[in-house]
Amino acid sequence: MGGGRTLKLTLAYEGTAFSGWQRQPDARTVQAVVEDALASIEGRQVAVVAAGRTDAGVHARALVASADVAKPHAPAVFARALNACLPDDVRVMAVEMAAPGFNARRDARAKTYHYVIANGPDPGPFVRRLVWHVPQVLDIGAMSEAASAITGRHDFAAFQATGSDVRTTIRRVFRSEVTADPAAPGSPRLIRYRITGTGFLRHMVRNIAGTLVEIGKGRWPPEEMAAILASRNRSRAGATAPPQGLTLVRVFYEAPASAGPGTPAAG
Amino acid sequence: MGGGRTLKLTLAYEGTAFSGWQRQPDARTVQAVVEDALASIEGRQVAVVAAGRTDAGVHARALVASADVAKPHAPAVFARALNACLPDDVRVMAVEMAAPGFNARRDARAKTYHYVIANGPDPGPFVRRLVWHVPQVLDIGAMSEAASAITGRHDFAAFQATGSDVRTTIRRVFRSEVTADPAAPGSPRLIRYRITGTGFLRHMVRNIAGTLVEIGKGRWPPEEMAAILASRNRSRAGATAPPQGLTLVRVFYEAPASAGPGTPAAG
Repeated sequence: MGGGRTLKLTLAYEGTAFSGWQRQPDARTVQAVVEDALASIEGRQVAVVAAGRTDAGVHARALVASADVAKPHAPAVFARALNACLPDDVRVMAVEMAAPGFNARRDARAKTYHYVIANGPDPGPFVRRLVWHVPQVLDIGAMSEAASAITGRHDFAAFQATGSDVRTTIRRVFRSEVTADPAAPGSPRLIRYRITGTGFLRHMVRNIAGTLVEIGKGRWPPEEMAAILASRNRSRAGATAPPQGLTLVRVFYEAPASAGPGTPAAG
Repeated sequence: MGGGRTLKLTLAYEGTAFSGWQRQPDARTVQAVVEDALASIEGRQVAVVAAGRTDAGVHARALVASADVAKPHAPAVFARALNACLPDDVRVMAVEMAAPGFNARRDARAKTYHYVIANGPDPGPFVRRLVWHVPQVLDIGAMSEAASAITGRHDFAAFQATGSDVRTTIRRVFRSEVTADPAAPGSPRLIRYRITGTGFLRHMVRNIAGTLVEIGKGRWPPEEMAAILASRNRSRAGATAPPQGLTLVRVFYEAPASAGPGTPAAG
């Protein structure tokens, strides 16, 4: 397309009321809402390509997407115009001009997800849409030890959704750790699992989170995580944790090879 | 009432969909929802007394309330039964047995409020219900300096809602400070005003917050805060900041006299 430019969009959305990222008939999806907003600016349908597709109910703080546009507006004008068209639960947090040929999906080198658990009698009114509520006391030390077994290059077949069909189930994880915020007055304790990797199989983070919770409850010892991973057997891992605890936090475009051990780190 | 006991309830609520704390006809209020939940357990109408009344749209993380009950349940049983009756936007975070005659309003010695400003082009989807969105760049240093003028025993008539009728407009503020969180990827910068005092006039925190934002914008120098306070003139202060940025964070029952300088501190 003559004179076309490529935008790099950074999107944030609360996934509660969306049937995930990908456009599908008769469903409210983030892709459809963003593409329709961009279409109203461009005066024609425009494809928006995301770094990754989130499932129904999953949130994003900084999902990167690319789109080829024809209008000569400055990036800040695109940002304001898009936000004027978009609903409150999806916002454009930044727009930049991308290098020619930039593709948010193909060029992504790594992603960071957070999975958040509200641990206590009640999640309270403020984080209820963004956490998995687990009332039983969880052993953070055991979860932390188990999470460290995920770091490195592994075959993650044990944590892949059943029925998936991908070329390879090998992925590289740069960071995998569990931390707990001290409970503020009137708030539950928040346990946060952070994972950064080159790519993720379908339901991989939620299946790891479900397994971490079983280990936190004491059903399995921390060493079981490495054994489950080595088994490549989905039926050995814990149940899939619910979508509302999962948030895509960051997408990396620098090559992971240039990063030191444990990096790229989450922001 | 023979055999009656007094409960100390710690409540958290998102104020978005409430017409404030106080029961009133034909409106959804926190008091009505909590009293109705307690009535369904006690089998009779029960009065719930809060440490303070929040306005429509204002939130609470740990509002303390008291109620005299007749049922012999353990506190944890009251907590579970209340939460089973309450909607998602108001939750009981703790129930304790109070000393005989405890009254959450009369016995309160100090309260902490936070007023949160999302400073940037867009507040994003996650904090939108809990902040005042101010797009213009704000000078945190100037706001911080101005906030310090509020600390101490003062006549706060300049920050009282017009039309109020109280015995005295003198209040004591133990802590008044502005801090800014660094912006996370995909999030706006959050500026937080924390104030702890013996009591608050109607709209006092929101009027101080509105004045702090004018100072942050550079409309007035930081020294203007002390001058406005000394004037006792409501028309000199800034506009009332909107309710959704305000959250009651903590109620203190220890005597402020026993506390050192700057305390009681917020949790």
